[in-house]
Amino acid sequence: MIPTIADVKAAAERIKGIAVRTPLIRNDALDAQTGAKVWVKAENLQRGGAFKIRGATNAIAALAPEVRAKGVLAYSSGNHAIAVSTAAKLFGVPAVIVMPKDAPKIKLDTTRSLGAEVVTYDRVNESREAIGEKLSSERSLALVRPFDDPNVIAGQGTAGLEIAEEVSPDVVFAPASGGGLATGVALALPKARIIAVEPAEHNDIQRTLESGSIQRNAPGVRSICDGLLAEQMGDITYPIARERFERVIAVTDDAVLRAMKFAFTRLKLVLEPSGAASLAALLEGGVDVSGLTVAVVASGGNVDAETFARALAI
Amino acid sequence: MIPTIADVKAAAERIKGIAVRTPLIRNDALDAQTGAKVWVKAENLQRGGAFKIRGATNAIAALAPEVRAKGVLAYSSGNHAIAVSTAAKLFGVPAVIVMPKDAPKIKLDTTRSLGAEVVTYDRVNESREAIGEKLSSERSLALVRPFDDPNVIAGQGTAGLEIAEEVSPDVVFAPASGGGLATGVALALPKARIIAVEPAEHNDIQRTLESGSIQRNAPGVRSICDGLLAEQMGDITYPIARERFERVIAVTDDAVLRAMKFAFTRLKLVLEPSGAASLAALLEGGVDVSGLTVAVVASGGNVDAETFARALAI
Repeated sequence: MIPTIADVKAAAERIKGIAVRTPLIRNDALDAQTGAKVWVKAENLQRGGAFKIRGATNAIAALAPEVRAKGVLAYSSGNHAIAVSTAAKLFGVPAVIVMPKDAPKIKLDTTRSLGAEVVTYDRVNESREAIGEKLSSERSLALVRPFDDPNVIAGQGTAGLEIAEEVSPDVVFAPASGGGLATGVALALPKARIIAVEPAEHNDIQRTLESGSIQRNAPGVRSICDGLLAEQMGDITYPIARERFERVIAVTDDAVLRAMKFAFTRLKLVLEPSGAASLAALLEGGVDVSGLTVAVVASGGNVDAETFARALAI
Repeated sequence: MIPTIADVKAAAERIKGIAVRTPLIRNDALDAQTGAKVWVKAENLQRGGAFKIRGATNAIAALAPEVRAKGVLAYSSGNHAIAVSTAAKLFGVPAVIVMPKDAPKIKLDTTRSLGAEVVTYDRVNESREAIGEKLSSERSLALVRPFDDPNVIAGQGTAGLEIAEEVSPDVVFAPASGGGLATGVALALPKARIIAVEPAEHNDIQRTLESGSIQRNAPGVRSICDGLLAEQMGDITYPIARERFERVIAVTDDAVLRAMKFAFTRLKLVLEPSGAASLAALLEGGVDVSGLTVAVVASGGNVDAETFARALAI
C-alpha cells in the first residue's frame, strides 16, 4: 500500500497535460536572508491554484473506467475540492464535494463554478466522513481521499520529481497536515532532508512523531492555514513521515502572515496561508540552512482578498 | 542605430546568468474569459521584480571593458535606477544615479543599498540631463538610457525571444511608454501582431502614431501606472513602433486595478499597475482574440501594499 518513487514516476506520466509543470523561482532577497540557495516551487501557479490537482488527477486516472463513469466524491476544505472538481470535469464525470460551511467563499464558489455539486456541513458538529460515506454508497460514487491514498500521495509527489529534475536540494520545506504532499515529495527526493511544516496550535504531526503513534488535534482548533487542518495523519502517510520527516516545525498565524507579505513584497507571488507556511518555517523556524540548497514548496494561492489584506497590513 | 532580431539574440547570450528566464503561465479562467489560448509572460518574477534588468544588463555588458570599468550613469526615479544599480554591482563597476530629491524614500534607499551613488536634484529648478551630462563628462561615466538605446531595446526584447522559444503567438500585448520593451518584443517576434498598451490620460503613443510625429504628454498628467509615464517615445523606439504596433490601447486606472485583482484572484501573481496594463487591455480593450494564441507581457510586480489594497477592494 505504501507508494514508491516508481509510483510517483508513473503518476507524472498520467497527469501530463492536466497538471502543469510549475516554475522553481529564485530570489536574491530570500537567499540573502537565509544564507542558502533557495528554490521556491510555486504550486500557487498550478492549475486550480494549488498542488492538489496532481493527486486528484492521478487518483481519478487510476480508477477503472466503468467506476469512474459513475462519478467521484471528495471531502475537502477547499483545494482538494477544486482539484477533484477540475479533474472530474476534464474526465467528463460527475463530482460531489462535501465542504465545511465556513470554507473560504472563494473556494466554495470556485468548486461550484467547476460544475461540482457542493454539500456543506458543520465542521464542529458533523462528520464529513459520515456524510461522505452515505453519499458515496447511495450514489455509487468513488471516494477520492484527500491524502491517505497511494495514488494521491504519488500524484502530489510529482511536484518533488519536478524539483529533482532541476536541482538537488539538501533540504525541502513542505507543508503537512494529512501529509500527502510532504510524503509524496519525500518519496520523489530520497536523498533530501524533509522538514514538514504545520500550524502551531494544530501540531499533531509533531506529537505523532514524538509519541510514535498517530495523534489527533483537539476538535475546533483553528488556524489561518485553512488547508492544513486535517484531524490526523493517515495510515499510509504516517509510516512515510516516520521514516522521512527529519523535523516538524509548527508556525504561528503571525509568522504565516509575515511570510505571505514577504511573498508579496519580494517574490511577487500570491500565497494563501497554507501555501506560505513552509516559507514561514524557512524564514522564522530557526533551521540553519546557510550554505545549503533548499527547496520550499509554496503549495497554493487560493486566498480571499480580506485575508490577503491582513497579511499586507502586518 | 535600429536594433534587429540578431541584436536581441546577442543580448540573450549576454544576460544569461543575470536576468532569469521567467515562466510563461497558462490559466483556465483567462482562456475562458477571452476565448483565446493565453500565455502570460511573468516578468514580475524577474530579478528585481521587473523586466528592466534585461536592458540594463545588456547595455552595460555591451560597453568596452575599459569604458565600463570607469562606471555608469543613469537618471531615473524608479525601476531603471534599480536595474542599472543591480547590473553595475554584478559587473563590479561604479554606478551613479541621478534621482529627484522627492523620489520615494524606498526607491532612494534601495538604489543606495545596491551600492550606487545617488545624486539628487530639484525637479522644479534643476535639469537632470544637465547634471547627468556634467557628471558623465567630469567622471567619464557611460550613460545608460532608460529606453532610447539599441542595447536597451535589444535587452528588453529577450523577453520576447523567450516567448518565441515556447509558443508562436498571433498577438502580443505589451505595455509601452518610452517603448523599449514593446519594440524589443516586436523585434523578437517578427510575425506577431503587436498591441501596445498605455495609460488613458497619457496616450502620447496613440497620438504619435496617428499624427506621424512624436507627440508629448501634457506636463503633470498622472496615472496609477507610475512606470508608464515617459514624456515621449525615443528616436529609436518610434520608427519600430510605427512599423510594428498594429494598435495602441489606452487603459483607465480602474481597468488596471481590475486587472491587478484578476491577477491576484486567478493568476496568483502580484502585478504592479504598469505590469497589469497589458492584461487590462486584453480583458477590457475590446480586441477580439477568440481562437488566437496570445502572449501578454506582465512587466513588473513592484507595488506598495496601499496600492495593492486598492486593487483588492475594487
